[in-house]
Amino acid sequence: MDTPLHHVVIVGSGFGGLFAAQAFAHAPVRVTLLSGTNHHLFQPLLYQVATGVLSSGEIAPPTRDVLKRQRNVRVLLGLVTHIDLDAREVTSTSPLGERRTSYDSIIVAAGAGQSYFGNDQFAQFAPGLKGLDDALEVRGRILGAFELAELSTDDETLDRLLTFVVVGAGATGVEMAGQIAELSRRTLPGTFRHIDPSRTRIVVIDPVPQVLPGYSDKLSRAAADRLESLGVELWLGRKVVDVDEDGVVVEDADGTRTRLEAACKVWAAGVGASPLAAQLAEDSGAPTDRAGRIEVEDDCTLPGHPEVFVVGDLMTIKGYPWVAQLAMQSGTYAARAITRRVRGEEPAPPFHYRDKGMMATVARFHAVARIGRFETAGLFAWGLWLGVHLLYLIGFKNRVSTLMHWVVSFVGRSRSEQAATWQQVVGRNALRREGSPPLAAQPGTDPG
Amino acid sequence: MDTPLHHVVIVGSGFGGLFAAQAFAHAPVRVTLLSGTNHHLFQPLLYQVATGVLSSGEIAPPTRDVLKRQRNVRVLLGLVTHIDLDAREVTSTSPLGERRTSYDSIIVAAGAGQSYFGNDQFAQFAPGLKGLDDALEVRGRILGAFELAELSTDDETLDRLLTFVVVGAGATGVEMAGQIAELSRRTLPGTFRHIDPSRTRIVVIDPVPQVLPGYSDKLSRAAADRLESLGVELWLGRKVVDVDEDGVVVEDADGTRTRLEAACKVWAAGVGASPLAAQLAEDSGAPTDRAGRIEVEDDCTLPGHPEVFVVGDLMTIKGYPWVAQLAMQSGTYAARAITRRVRGEEPAPPFHYRDKGMMATVARFHAVARIGRFETAGLFAWGLWLGVHLLYLIGFKNRVSTLMHWVVSFVGRSRSEQAATWQQVVGRNALRREGSPPLAAQPGTDPG
Repeated sequence: MDTPLHHVVIVGSGFGGLFAAQAFAHAPVRVTLLSGTNHHLFQPLLYQVATGVLSSGEIAPPTRDVLKRQRNVRVLLGLVTHIDLDAREVTSTSPLGERRTSYDSIIVAAGAGQSYFGNDQFAQFAPGLKGLDDALEVRGRILGAFELAELSTDDETLDRLLTFVVVGAGATGVEMAGQIAELSRRTLPGTFRHIDPSRTRIVVIDPVPQVLPGYSDKLSRAAADRLESLGVELWLGRKVVDVDEDGVVVEDADGTRTRLEAACKVWAAGVGASPLAAQLAEDSGAPTDRAGRIEVEDDCTLPGHPEVFVVGDLMTIKGYPWVAQLAMQSGTYAARAITRRVRGEEPAPPFHYRDKGMMATVARFHAVARIGRFETAGLFAWGLWLGVHLLYLIGFKNRVSTLMHWVVSFVGRSRSEQAATWQQVVGRNALRREGSPPLAAQPGTDPG
Repeated sequence: MDTPLHHVVIVGSGFGGLFAAQAFAHAPVRVTLLSGTNHHLFQPLLYQVATGVLSSGEIAPPTRDVLKRQRNVRVLLGLVTHIDLDAREVTSTSPLGERRTSYDSIIVAAGAGQSYFGNDQFAQFAPGLKGLDDALEVRGRILGAFELAELSTDDETLDRLLTFVVVGAGATGVEMAGQIAELSRRTLPGTFRHIDPSRTRIVVIDPVPQVLPGYSDKLSRAAADRLESLGVELWLGRKVVDVDEDGVVVEDADGTRTRLEAACKVWAAGVGASPLAAQLAEDSGAPTDRAGRIEVEDDCTLPGHPEVFVVGDLMTIKGYPWVAQLAMQSGTYAARAITRRVRGEEPAPPFHYRDKGMMATVARFHAVARIGRFETAGLFAWGLWLGVHLLYLIGFKNRVSTLMHWVVSFVGRSRSEQAATWQQVVGRNALRREGSPPLAAQPGTDPG
């Protein structure tokens, strides 16, 4: 008689979860992947969805489609709310109710959410960029701000509507600012009659004194120069201390506060580990870092629980950076470590992150890249960046025609995803005034 | 001294409004186009957005981009709430508040919304297909139903989740049913482990005894045969009398009522004119038809108001069918009639609709088409359909790469737009049970 196969539960369909699932391709295990969405998300390109270059589907292949041929994996929709370490059981929720799934091993790859550093009330005014919902929200706000600016009848309103604030000067912040600049300087001019979209003000704010911290001074300087040549203002060494419907308050190093009127704000700062990390840390007594990430053992397991692996943005180990590569490599590592155990082989050696380099795109034809010790900024780096991303997307079977579409959009002037619905512009737009007339005059319709 | 140019306000950016604006290209007028959305919508392909074939942007080019080179047109975001016929002033609303715009002539092309025949409470359970918001809502529900079916633990729930009801057997109903069939029979199989998506039940319900009324019996029969060969059930001559979260109640000709359990319902029946039609009819005393459309004069003007043109789905004239062609032709006609007047030329002859034929696609490689007296069903009709739609989309400067992408998706097996976010599946999903646990455990994030 056969014993039942070792059952692995994977929480999350991001880089960590998906790479773990794929690494089990030929392993003698059953895998259940639980995720709150039906798709894998290629998060490094999310800012392009937010700025109208790409559609949702182009960066979010259905997880079950990617894993279709791997017969030992089942993919289930469910938001994991609790992991019972003693009972080895995970609770997930869906519109059908709660579901409990027991496991022999578990890989927790639930990823990071946005962190507002204790100011969660900022979220409604400055959405982050973590999932597709966020990206579509931001897209509606950006395009909506230009539409409303065209309607403005006084300079104060006009200036507020044409000022865009990006909080955070890391890769996402730099990329967002670059894309808003391209949108306003290249795509939109000529389409408005009242406003000049190219006079849009874009302000990037970060308490760190340089853009792209984590890159060398040389690359950071190159990115800053390119942004400034696009007219992006860099308010570095300054901290956002308040956000409301109409703007932000910024504090200098010497404590001076300045108010900046801006209708559209995007939060590209702070990352906070999933609430699952807090639950796991509390129940296991594992220490966490300031962002709530779990300090794992050198084999990515939860202290005292060799059957629980924590990977990607949810864990901290040896000071490795929280990049997509770390999630992929730790996900793969966890799957291989479990496979060894199940096969009765020697334990895996400690997890070691292999640094393949970093790259960020600043604007059209301009990126910065580091590969090992080799550094480059400009067109060549942009070509590298494009090639790496194309290869990755092709790996996930996104169609070549989609990729061609992307290359054409990204290199060209126009953008294919500029449709903003009435709901997006009005219903969710933080610009709405109290006391304005009821806006849902024709509910449920998208008036032509 | 110059007199100010004649000012034309166009209400709506659908086929009627856009074609009117374009017909003013060389006219000595100023044009203001007011629309509740920032895009023109190619509504005949909306069902493909709802079923994951196309992205929003692929059928919704920004109106201001389409009209970019026409310097006498300005495009403004605004939902028109009132037209003051005496003062010749239109009121529109936006998040910036109300705006009044006076006109010399006005072309009302506000289009039609969904009609639930007095049962507006059905809308929450069976969304229609009028705008992009609707299409994304329907997409989330369809894909969500399959995801939830995979989680089901009893046959009753499974059957309810895998039963799709399309209310209405006109072109939109037939096209939706055909696409749900293709999705379940061709795209999804192999991606689930618990359910067999190909056993999905699709039921089209309509009180009219044939599909595609308005087409000949021969074409109607051809479409019905093709749908039945795809396993679609046609409940014709039967009327939907109730809709709730879990299903519909259907009444036969003899009054017998049957309940059909179905989690996902799409409303492709009933069209109701925009509330503006009611206001115009009341203020002018013009008669309306049962759907609320205004009976216009033979030059498409509102009785007693030669400066007010009503075009497209909002008006009824000489029994012409409410198709995209009617909106385009009446929009163009109205613009030319105004141009003649402004130029002091003879009045335009009465509006005459030129019937260019009709076509509807049923499934991959199968459409029905009538051009003049020539009728065809099958592959050739599908080729015609594809060609006509390609030409139209190219006309609106959607990029060739986008079109290639569309052809590849539509002919091929997979679909590029299958990403459904947690919000889409859970927040708006009518399948949600009362008493289920709080679902927004991680608000604002799209858990990986």
